Amino acid sequence: MKIVDIAAEDIRFPTSRTLAGSDAMHTDPDYSAAYAVVRCEGTSPPSGHGLAFTIGRGNEIVVRAIESLRALVVGRDTEELFADMGAFARTLTHDSQLRWIGPEKGAIHMATAAVVNAVWDLMAKVRGLPLWRLLVAMPPEEIVRLIDFRYLSDALTPAEALALLRDRMPDRAARERILADGGIPAYITSAGWIGYDDATVRRLCREALAAGFTRFKMKVGADAPEQDAARAHLLREEIGAERVLMMDANQRWDVGEAIDRMRPLAAFDPWWIEEPTSPDDVLGHAAIARAIAPIRVATGEMVQNRVVFKQLFQARAIDVAQIDACRLGGVNEVVAVLLLAAKFGVPVCPHAGGVGLCEYVQHLAAFDLIAVAPRLEERWVEFADHLHEHFVQPIAVERGAYRLPEAPGYGVEMRAASRREHTFPSGSVWATA
Amino acid sequence: MKIVDIAAEDIRFPTSRTLAGSDAMHTDPDYSAAYAVVRCEGTSPPSGHGLAFTIGRGNEIVVRAIESLRALVVGRDTEELFADMGAFARTLTHDSQLRWIGPEKGAIHMATAAVVNAVWDLMAKVRGLPLWRLLVAMPPEEIVRLIDFRYLSDALTPAEALALLRDRMPDRAARERILADGGIPAYITSAGWIGYDDATVRRLCREALAAGFTRFKMKVGADAPEQDAARAHLLREEIGAERVLMMDANQRWDVGEAIDRMRPLAAFDPWWIEEPTSPDDVLGHAAIARAIAPIRVATGEMVQNRVVFKQLFQARAIDVAQIDACRLGGVNEVVAVLLLAAKFGVPVCPHAGGVGLCEYVQHLAAFDLIAVAPRLEERWVEFADHLHEHFVQPIAVERGAYRLPEAPGYGVEMRAASRREHTFPSGSVWATA
Repeated sequence: MKIVDIAAEDIRFPTSRTLAGSDAMHTDPDYSAAYAVVRCEGTSPPSGHGLAFTIGRGNEIVVRAIESLRALVVGRDTEELFADMGAFARTLTHDSQLRWIGPEKGAIHMATAAVVNAVWDLMAKVRGLPLWRLLVAMPPEEIVRLIDFRYLSDALTPAEALALLRDRMPDRAARERILADGGIPAYITSAGWIGYDDATVRRLCREALAAGFTRFKMKVGADAPEQDAARAHLLREEIGAERVLMMDANQRWDVGEAIDRMRPLAAFDPWWIEEPTSPDDVLGHAAIARAIAPIRVATGEMVQNRVVFKQLFQARAIDVAQIDACRLGGVNEVVAVLLLAAKFGVPVCPHAGGVGLCEYVQHLAAFDLIAVAPRLEERWVEFADHLHEHFVQPIAVERGAYRLPEAPGYGVEMRAASRREHTFPSGSVWATA
Repeated sequence: MKIVDIAAEDIRFPTSRTLAGSDAMHTDPDYSAAYAVVRCEGTSPPSGHGLAFTIGRGNEIVVRAIESLRALVVGRDTEELFADMGAFARTLTHDSQLRWIGPEKGAIHMATAAVVNAVWDLMAKVRGLPLWRLLVAMPPEEIVRLIDFRYLSDALTPAEALALLRDRMPDRAARERILADGGIPAYITSAGWIGYDDATVRRLCREALAAGFTRFKMKVGADAPEQDAARAHLLREEIGAERVLMMDANQRWDVGEAIDRMRPLAAFDPWWIEEPTSPDDVLGHAAIARAIAPIRVATGEMVQNRVVFKQLFQARAIDVAQIDACRLGGVNEVVAVLLLAAKFGVPVCPHAGGVGLCEYVQHLAAFDLIAVAPRLEERWVEFADHLHEHFVQPIAVERGAYRLPEAPGYGVEMRAASRREHTFPSGSVWATA
């Protein structure tokens, strides 16, 4: 089957109107998708859908970057791509001219993620499997071949990756049964947006508790430290002392400031502090982690690529790795980071929320928990309760856990009407604004 | 004066036809500029010109990103901007939605550089000064205000930066006289492109020696180690044992590989090895530097921002900092890195070559050498001998040194005819290809 086109669409949801998704650095996000559709020749063939998540302005730049990748994909035969998805991903990341505007970071890398993921979605649909089952079904040798080991060999070799995957084989069936029964454990973020007032946060906490959630994340990094403490106090009043409370500063602080701001918040027993400073600052995270232990340090949603994750692990800078399905360059690079994390014994708790991120990462977490992670405990997927209605196969979350998805594909195919209405700036949602 | 427009142009030079600029990772570059022109209202006001350098495909993405920044600049009053250029630069880098596709890296950051630099060009023209004189004339307090200290305070505080600038004040006049007399010392790269054959390299070495150059850079990272050794042998035959020979691997190697490949090349007495591995790998550079000392490690042309430079200095990972005028987010972030480098005692040798980079960095080097650097020795600006004829005020290089530029502005205004002919894909150079 030959690929005949990649369509790139600019889709935006006006979430800034309600402050859903607001945090200390991103005060007015419009959750958006630079959306790629891979089309094939033939009579009603499946199409592959991928997206890169952004928060509004700038989405048009990632859309343009998807268009720039088109020439590397159109005309290629799908079965040839599917036979070596590692080689396919490298044709995008190693382009001798395009790499200059990364390499493997920023707009071009997010566009790469959208395109790589769209081809994975296509492959999973052609094979009739949800993405996680497609990955679990691959022999370890084939998984290893997905990975670009360039710049990784001082931390992880192909032989080590292969051995790690083989070591997990005996546990796979039992782990899959556990996930099939109980789902993929989640935590909830959408009760704690920084722009919400106290009454809204209390109401959302109660609803989440009633729905079975036992892990809650709140935003910190308000202008005054007292505001963070007051909000944490409120959260603890609502959820009690025993449940898990994470905190997220969204890169608001310098290194010393993060240490100073977290010390008084230790009284509220946070499980982790997420993004205490710049996502580029490996040594800064390491300094913070040393200073505020036993509070864990987490980051990843803006960690640009496997080279930075490698260093975060090497420097013992993070206690939790928050992979992102479309900040990293798609499934291939995520698999690399899952294996690095496993080697260094760091649990992976995928970043979600946004639009489409929950739909994506349920597959990545299922693969990680079944085939890669050293153990199942303390590995939770983020959940935010919005925009799921726009997807053809939305996530199903029950009793604080994601049900294992069974529909073929990688999960982010958006409904045609939703895409039409939210096309920026011509869709009805924006034209009438 | 009000800014009424920013025009964004896609300008490309077909350098891949001759392999000028070729290296181990970028085998067929078409030197290109995502070009920004800031226009003001009034009767024949000056216009501000800035560019981000790319190597062909992908230039259109940076052009699109310049267009996305337009709304943050158009309508603003120039004297208000000029009065606080630090605040102006932060309006671009801190946009609450655009930052998601960086932050401060990749296409959006390169576009930021083009726009910030265009406004600096405008300011310098309005003041009737070359950019370096404009900077040298600013009081130290104003220089400090240019810098975004977010994420820097664990390495450099505003008070430290101010003290450092004040410490240099007594030497400024003498240093300026030295540069006015002898120029800014340079080294030459354009004799050593990896795609050139031996005869061409020999001829270019002899021409460069005759022109007064005493420092030469060659590309390494060929498929076979013997090829690198043979080329180094050839260079040493031409330039002799006493002159300076740098080597540049353009990110070709993993960490262990870089160490293994450089050990035999030590016989050719390289002054530095540039970009031995990924520009994102702070810890990797540190490991290489420890292993191959006394060969220096250099990097910077693809170091995305001040946060990564900060860590390269903190980790003692590099012995030479190669700032880039349009990979960093423009003059403001370059000034931050110059001050960081001075604090950590690391010499700055700016990256140039490309198209417009020599024209840019002569100003940055002059400011560094006069007002920031601890001393003048071992600080050399890269030079590559091509495409200068396209600039309204091309560099002047004599006896292996840049003459101090005296024309008002920041130097990268390109001739109108050159821009027209090289516009991609409609210009005559491309339409007839």
